[in-house]
Amino acid sequence: MNRGAILHSCILPDIYAKNRSLLSFRLRTAREDAAECSLAVYARTTPERIRKFRMTCSLRDKEADYYTVEVPFSKVARYQKYYFELVGKGGEKLYLTSWGIQEKVPEDGFYEFLYANEKDCLTIPEWSKGQVYYQIFPERFCNGDRENDPEGCVDWGSAPDRDHYMGGDLRGIRSRLDYLEDLGVQCLYLTPIFRGDFNHKYATTDYFEVDPSFGTKEELAQLVDACHKKGIRIILDGVFNHCGIHFPPFQDLLEKQEASPYKDWFIVTDFPVTLSHHSYECVGAYKWMPKLNTSNREVREFVLSVMDYWIDKFHIDGWRLDVSDEVDGSVWTQARTFLKEKYPDCLLLGETWGSGRKLMLGNQMDSIMNYIFRDSVRDFFAAESIDAADFDGRLNHMLAEYPGEMQQALYNPLDSHDTERFLYLCGGDKRRFRLAAAFQFVFPGSPVIYYGDEIGMTGANDPDCRGAFIWEKEKQDEKLLRWYRRLTALRKGSEVLRKGSFTAVLCEGRTYGFARSLGEEELYVFLNAGEKKEAVLPVASPGKYKIIFSDREEEEGKTIRARWAEDGGKNGVNGDRMDCQGRLELMAGEWSVLVMEKEKEERGYEE
Amino acid sequence: MNRGAILHSCILPDIYAKNRSLLSFRLRTAREDAAECSLAVYARTTPERIRKFRMTCSLRDKEADYYTVEVPFSKVARYQKYYFELVGKGGEKLYLTSWGIQEKVPEDGFYEFLYANEKDCLTIPEWSKGQVYYQIFPERFCNGDRENDPEGCVDWGSAPDRDHYMGGDLRGIRSRLDYLEDLGVQCLYLTPIFRGDFNHKYATTDYFEVDPSFGTKEELAQLVDACHKKGIRIILDGVFNHCGIHFPPFQDLLEKQEASPYKDWFIVTDFPVTLSHHSYECVGAYKWMPKLNTSNREVREFVLSVMDYWIDKFHIDGWRLDVSDEVDGSVWTQARTFLKEKYPDCLLLGETWGSGRKLMLGNQMDSIMNYIFRDSVRDFFAAESIDAADFDGRLNHMLAEYPGEMQQALYNPLDSHDTERFLYLCGGDKRRFRLAAAFQFVFPGSPVIYYGDEIGMTGANDPDCRGAFIWEKEKQDEKLLRWYRRLTALRKGSEVLRKGSFTAVLCEGRTYGFARSLGEEELYVFLNAGEKKEAVLPVASPGKYKIIFSDREEEEGKTIRARWAEDGGKNGVNGDRMDCQGRLELMAGEWSVLVMEKEKEERGYEE
Repeated sequence: MNRGAILHSCILPDIYAKNRSLLSFRLRTAREDAAECSLAVYARTTPERIRKFRMTCSLRDKEADYYTVEVPFSKVARYQKYYFELVGKGGEKLYLTSWGIQEKVPEDGFYEFLYANEKDCLTIPEWSKGQVYYQIFPERFCNGDRENDPEGCVDWGSAPDRDHYMGGDLRGIRSRLDYLEDLGVQCLYLTPIFRGDFNHKYATTDYFEVDPSFGTKEELAQLVDACHKKGIRIILDGVFNHCGIHFPPFQDLLEKQEASPYKDWFIVTDFPVTLSHHSYECVGAYKWMPKLNTSNREVREFVLSVMDYWIDKFHIDGWRLDVSDEVDGSVWTQARTFLKEKYPDCLLLGETWGSGRKLMLGNQMDSIMNYIFRDSVRDFFAAESIDAADFDGRLNHMLAEYPGEMQQALYNPLDSHDTERFLYLCGGDKRRFRLAAAFQFVFPGSPVIYYGDEIGMTGANDPDCRGAFIWEKEKQDEKLLRWYRRLTALRKGSEVLRKGSFTAVLCEGRTYGFARSLGEEELYVFLNAGEKKEAVLPVASPGKYKIIFSDREEEEGKTIRARWAEDGGKNGVNGDRMDCQGRLELMAGEWSVLVMEKEKEERGYEE
Repeated sequence: MNRGAILHSCILPDIYAKNRSLLSFRLRTAREDAAECSLAVYARTTPERIRKFRMTCSLRDKEADYYTVEVPFSKVARYQKYYFELVGKGGEKLYLTSWGIQEKVPEDGFYEFLYANEKDCLTIPEWSKGQVYYQIFPERFCNGDRENDPEGCVDWGSAPDRDHYMGGDLRGIRSRLDYLEDLGVQCLYLTPIFRGDFNHKYATTDYFEVDPSFGTKEELAQLVDACHKKGIRIILDGVFNHCGIHFPPFQDLLEKQEASPYKDWFIVTDFPVTLSHHSYECVGAYKWMPKLNTSNREVREFVLSVMDYWIDKFHIDGWRLDVSDEVDGSVWTQARTFLKEKYPDCLLLGETWGSGRKLMLGNQMDSIMNYIFRDSVRDFFAAESIDAADFDGRLNHMLAEYPGEMQQALYNPLDSHDTERFLYLCGGDKRRFRLAAAFQFVFPGSPVIYYGDEIGMTGANDPDCRGAFIWEKEKQDEKLLRWYRRLTALRKGSEVLRKGSFTAVLCEGRTYGFARSLGEEELYVFLNAGEKKEAVLPVASPGKYKIIFSDREEEEGKTIRARWAEDGGKNGVNGDRMDCQGRLELMAGEWSVLVMEKEKEERGYEE
């Protein structure tokens, strides 16, 4: 076997408690290298009672397989010694312990899981797993109150630039909740709404006030209340890495210089402090956004008080945390401990553009903005720079960073206020865009709709991606909107899509097929991101498959029959990851998607 | 190349800030697979200014090489994009990015290091790196005050059993500080001294009192003060996972049952609570040690108040934290944040018996009790169950769990109050024992002397390993004691031994040779754990080597000359990890150790 690729690390996601009596174990091997991997585990007081569990290959990237198994315990999981047993395809047996790889059944050097304390268990808010997000840039969604419009507002629908205002506000959002409900949205994420500089409000100047151009605290309370009445959650954007220059502590520093009690709230590089990036650390060289010294206890306590305030008083459901990977990690460990004790169900969603591993070790974030997902989707569907095999490899590589619970809660965007709109990346090709959107809704994680994407809005990166929402029905792409409604309905109606496993079964050029399963339920997804007309999709077993979603709507409800595989079932891209004893023959349209559900056969029925 | 073995993870120890303007990067490959590994790094605003740094293979276990490089920045390290470039031995080039392995120079998907905030930097107390520990079991070290002896004390030196007392106390320890200073000890670790049950006091009943059989708070203050006057530090044992049944909150629970305000300080499994392991979670099934509910905020705050109290009032230098891997992790993240703000130099040393990875991600412990080190030393020197190559593989595998700073601070024991004494494991063979002790002092990390080992005390596991210290000089092994004194002197006199790199150059059956280097300084260690008489030790370059330590003391100060390697320098076990252009020919005694220092040649001098 490939010894160099065999790995287990005594941290999440390789070992963790799902609850006090359920442990999850993971082992990495080289891709398609192992015939079988097992976990051997025993309580340290009863070494004679070793239990063995066969592990399942749950992820496979280009280089590696990730085997997992969950082990239940009758009481609390504690003092469990364990090691791994690997069998290579040629029958070679190896063992992995904390000392490394061994060739004999180990007698010492075992790994040990010590104790599943309550807070050591990985708990991600259940509601956030697989839900449908909708991201709103409040200045541009809907103007519900002309009275609070900033002076010099330009017309709604003007070409966006970085400086001007169009008048969107909280009352506007509230007035459109029926629309959002109808669209199938389950959680709103609002970019910053606290008093701040610039139309994006990422330069906060008062963390305890709603920006007057967006409305009042009362209106926020009404918005949250109205959302909750519809079963829609709402999270706000916390910008704690930096502030705006009109933030009073910064003004105090400018005024009193070294005598300011807020001197250590910032990272001053040169006194006297002037309004210049040479004086203090800021976001890049952007002097309008002084960096807060998040390593300072006072700042940390201030941040916690803000995070607490809006949950406590306004019942928001959680926080999206701006550039969370630029903030001192101790802020997040403290915030998580403090907030989850008070509000066990609140969501902590961190912004990052790369791997979220650092934030996702169980003691900081529940989820991250998964731009790595978006990069892959862009490259496969829009840019066509990678084929299905590369796409699958990158997706699995990304998923392997996180434990299963977190995979389900990943915030999977196509775009945002900080990127080109996805349709723009597709060069306006809606076939690509529709397929990419469909992919969001059938892949593990939480799909995100960036406001306006669903009606065909397009635009280059900031400021163009921040256009005013087009409310005139005749200017909306009704067909696209309907597509999105069907996608949210599909997702919301399927627990398998929200929480099921994910296994690629077909990677062939521009066609990509995968299985999702949960308990007895089994779904197959086929995506044809090109012109191909016919395809054969390996499935676990022969039998009847009902089309539950198709770009050709008339096909929905039809049943197709999978025939036996002729080669004994090793015909998927993923070899023995899933025994594919059946094959579905598909007539695939260009740029098409099919979702099929395995029908439960009558007992005793065999073809 | 072996693609499955190539890995980088965006967490410590693969990437971290050593200080605000110095980053450390690590990459893993299969063993001896790469001809060269480089880091490419650029600030995200200047992608045209890519800097490349050749990486060094700093660790090598049986399966993998670990390449590292440190990169300094002129200002704070932030917004740094990076990827790795690997060249295989056949010239194959591969690139590693956050998307996985690529074959072309990457244009996207880079890793990114965002921001080196002050508290994100890894800071381990400088004083703890490579220092000499001395572990004391207070009941058995020295009886300095007969007045505080518990009733029914048995004679000092009686065969230890689990129940009886011999009268050791704090005043006794203080009376022996000259001895400890003379021995070369730099930090005392005392097993628990707070009021508690049993002679080991691991069942604490009052966290704010010194156990009366050990003395008073005043005596503790005197002991700490006396230590500090000699430049010796002192850490205490914090037992926060569980308590003794006489701990007042537990008594309150027994009395008031569900009405007790301390109900949630414990994990009650069945009311009414009786003194039984069926009623509450405890250490194993040991009803005398009820587990504290460390997931409870009140308990956490109590623990923090205890940790603070003894540092604040008694100036102890840090904490050894009992079964730290059984305690809720949030206790340690909170404790670290809180304590390091108040006492930046305090040490947090966690007990674990396996990998300390979970505790050593930068936000919990500074160091762990490295029993995995002890297991390897036992198997090589005492049990002879592994050869030098396996020994080296296991040591490197263990080191690879931690960043360099932490490797230097690892608490490396041969034994403890919870194991057989090492001499016992050696079957009384002092040649083995002396060599193992020497190894402790020449290997990276902080060597630990368990009280009495240095005078030849032996004993099986608890209770035998907890015998009374033998103070009668005629019963002490003076030769062994002298050996230890020479070892501590060697270690204290050598910054290379305390902080230098570590590279094996010879693994041949029972002989093991390695290099330690730091800046211009270079040391070579040769250990012959067997009967072999002659050996050739590969060294980086020819030249003169001075013996600075030898089991044959008369050899010290002698110089030997290394000749040129005939095979071009690829003669070490570690291939290209170090170009070994020289060879030292050694006449090695049985069970011998040699430490040699490369002499600085006059400029222009060539053999």
